[in-house]
Amino acid sequence: MTNLLQPARTVAELKELRALTGNEDGAQRVAFTDTWVAARKWFRAKLAELPVEVHQDPAGNLWATLRGSSDKSLLIGGHIDSVPNGGWLDGCLNLVAGLEVLRRIAAEGTPPVTVRLVDWADEEGARFGRSLFGSSAASGALVPDDVRNLTDRNGVKLVDAVRPHGIDLDRATEARQELNNAAAYLELHIEQGPVLESMSLPMGVVLGTFGVERHTITFTGQAAHSGSTPMAHRRDALGGVSKLHLAIREIAVQHGGVCTVGKVTTEPGIVTAVVGEATMTLDQRHLNATSLAAMYTAAREASERIAGEEKIEVAWKKLWQIQPFPFHPTLIELCDEAIRETCGTSHRLPSGPLHDAAEVCRAGVPTIMLFVQSLRGISHNRIEDTREEHLELSVGALDRLATKAMAWISGQ
Amino acid sequence: MTNLLQPARTVAELKELRALTGNEDGAQRVAFTDTWVAARKWFRAKLAELPVEVHQDPAGNLWATLRGSSDKSLLIGGHIDSVPNGGWLDGCLNLVAGLEVLRRIAAEGTPPVTVRLVDWADEEGARFGRSLFGSSAASGALVPDDVRNLTDRNGVKLVDAVRPHGIDLDRATEARQELNNAAAYLELHIEQGPVLESMSLPMGVVLGTFGVERHTITFTGQAAHSGSTPMAHRRDALGGVSKLHLAIREIAVQHGGVCTVGKVTTEPGIVTAVVGEATMTLDQRHLNATSLAAMYTAAREASERIAGEEKIEVAWKKLWQIQPFPFHPTLIELCDEAIRETCGTSHRLPSGPLHDAAEVCRAGVPTIMLFVQSLRGISHNRIEDTREEHLELSVGALDRLATKAMAWISGQ
Repeated sequence: MTNLLQPARTVAELKELRALTGNEDGAQRVAFTDTWVAARKWFRAKLAELPVEVHQDPAGNLWATLRGSSDKSLLIGGHIDSVPNGGWLDGCLNLVAGLEVLRRIAAEGTPPVTVRLVDWADEEGARFGRSLFGSSAASGALVPDDVRNLTDRNGVKLVDAVRPHGIDLDRATEARQELNNAAAYLELHIEQGPVLESMSLPMGVVLGTFGVERHTITFTGQAAHSGSTPMAHRRDALGGVSKLHLAIREIAVQHGGVCTVGKVTTEPGIVTAVVGEATMTLDQRHLNATSLAAMYTAAREASERIAGEEKIEVAWKKLWQIQPFPFHPTLIELCDEAIRETCGTSHRLPSGPLHDAAEVCRAGVPTIMLFVQSLRGISHNRIEDTREEHLELSVGALDRLATKAMAWISGQ
Repeated sequence: MTNLLQPARTVAELKELRALTGNEDGAQRVAFTDTWVAARKWFRAKLAELPVEVHQDPAGNLWATLRGSSDKSLLIGGHIDSVPNGGWLDGCLNLVAGLEVLRRIAAEGTPPVTVRLVDWADEEGARFGRSLFGSSAASGALVPDDVRNLTDRNGVKLVDAVRPHGIDLDRATEARQELNNAAAYLELHIEQGPVLESMSLPMGVVLGTFGVERHTITFTGQAAHSGSTPMAHRRDALGGVSKLHLAIREIAVQHGGVCTVGKVTTEPGIVTAVVGEATMTLDQRHLNATSLAAMYTAAREASERIAGEEKIEVAWKKLWQIQPFPFHPTLIELCDEAIRETCGTSHRLPSGPLHDAAEVCRAGVPTIMLFVQSLRGISHNRIEDTREEHLELSVGALDRLATKAMAWISGQ
């Protein structure tokens, strides 16, 4: 097996793709652009050397199928699209590593189960602001009418932008039938966070993707002259933001999740005026739905208590919400084994970012992800990086995991 | 005396000026504009009915002099310029009330001391961002080279904008000789704050103008993904702002001054990222120079302690600084008497906003200000207002104060 799998080839192919579709600002494979088409053409040429059937589903997802003794399918997924000025690994590592694993399995003859590699369409949502396009079509979560009229910077509508790529938006959710025989879904990804690096570990098992509560909170007090208004007379809207920001950090620690205030704005926003209106964003994430709900409730209660203390008003507006997607317990164990066999030590961690795996999980397919260490936790940037020896290890671990998963599926 | 002074005329004249130089958005008497020229022409016409000598000094300040038995002068000042879309009282109440007092004194014959009414040029600095232009020329604080190339929105330089109004910037500080015989300076002003209204008092004695420390403070942490970065791994720059904002409010209360964070900005400033860089403005004011310095030191120390706690960096940048100008102790007592005689109760309070009085005080002239209540503490806005009965009371108090000040000067 070791001889058939060549992890160094994966690294070489990732560099080949970078040279073809990147520039000095980073990867430029934004979905539904010429560069994305060029990337997929490059990928199809690689697939053409394998005994696989290749087709695009109605949502634009590209499927390569290696028939096995059983129709039950092991899926391995990734996405070749990137954000503008993106990194060289996000999304395509998953796919190019999956290609190497597919090569190894194909080289060994007919596998016990069918093995399918999928390149999801527009994971990033960089052009239209709707991420997980292709995978949410496959899960059935995509509502065509919700995205039809999303426009890019040039005023082009999503429905029109996808058509030249063979996608009829109104048929996109027919992609769901691709998951009919799916028995397991595997996805390797760079961590895009600092945890594995801080622990000096190459890889970790992903427990699931966080649920998210995302809100805008506005505190309204009274703008007033900074010189003529004594402290006791003030209704300082910024007091709401400062206190709530500190409170949500405590709430995150208490509940074992993460809470972030990413943006604060102040009105009138001048040096000589007490803030009359202050707005903050709040992003709360947890792997457990009950804990996420508790964090949300705690933040709301804190905001109301603080508004009372400061004699100001508070209003919440929901931006976005998604439930947590915990991954499959057996696959978590198998992934843990695969990592330990590859590099000695594993670690279990949640995924903060969403991934196509969340949509596959939503569709009821047993799902698992494997994270490989990110340097400095940086992603969506041209300096995104991972040590090459870690990339090679991750190909090996994905390969071991694929073998274990096939055995598990066969035994069902 | 009561018959000669007609406070109702002051209110009527303020309305006359409003009709002449305001519109539905408020007062439009921005210095060095046609509307300002029209306002001054209106004012000169009023002065022409009095036995006063009128001239403009090299800084564009307009002086009306009623010769008295002594060359020692009592000055009463105000400014007819306004901010764009300003209120009907800020600056011109001082002047129009002063006109009424001058009328009363002139009607009684030659006063014991010379009485001079001054309309300071460009108190607001609305067009070039440099307030107290004329009064700082008279105090000697104006540095022509610092303001020469200030430009307005249309690219016009200050030096060129003032020339058509008879002002040679390089001779502006010759205005200082106007203060040669000045023995006291009186200025009535709307409070522009909430204190007197909250106490249901028409008027108060101003103890002086606050000194100001104005800074921009930048905290630098590390931008990071809101989902993939555990709380313990974060270096949240906004933590610096939130903690310091709450700390400076405590510092203000402890030292009896005011401290304000008016503006906060966050970078990258998106809902899904921990804040990498957060900037806040800080405006600290106190009537006592030692206390102001202590507030500044306490804020700096707090910022450094907080930066350590948050594992982030902090940097301070000075925006502006001015010393406090405490008013004259004898004039404070005389003003207090004048108010109590007029309406029964007085109150002593500092001035948060700066006024021309601060520059006259800087020049060494015994100075006092009298505040009349502002409704809702609002100024620099068309809804700026004061009850007419309070305006009339304030004319009476200014008149009583002028009489007391003349006696005080005569007795020196």
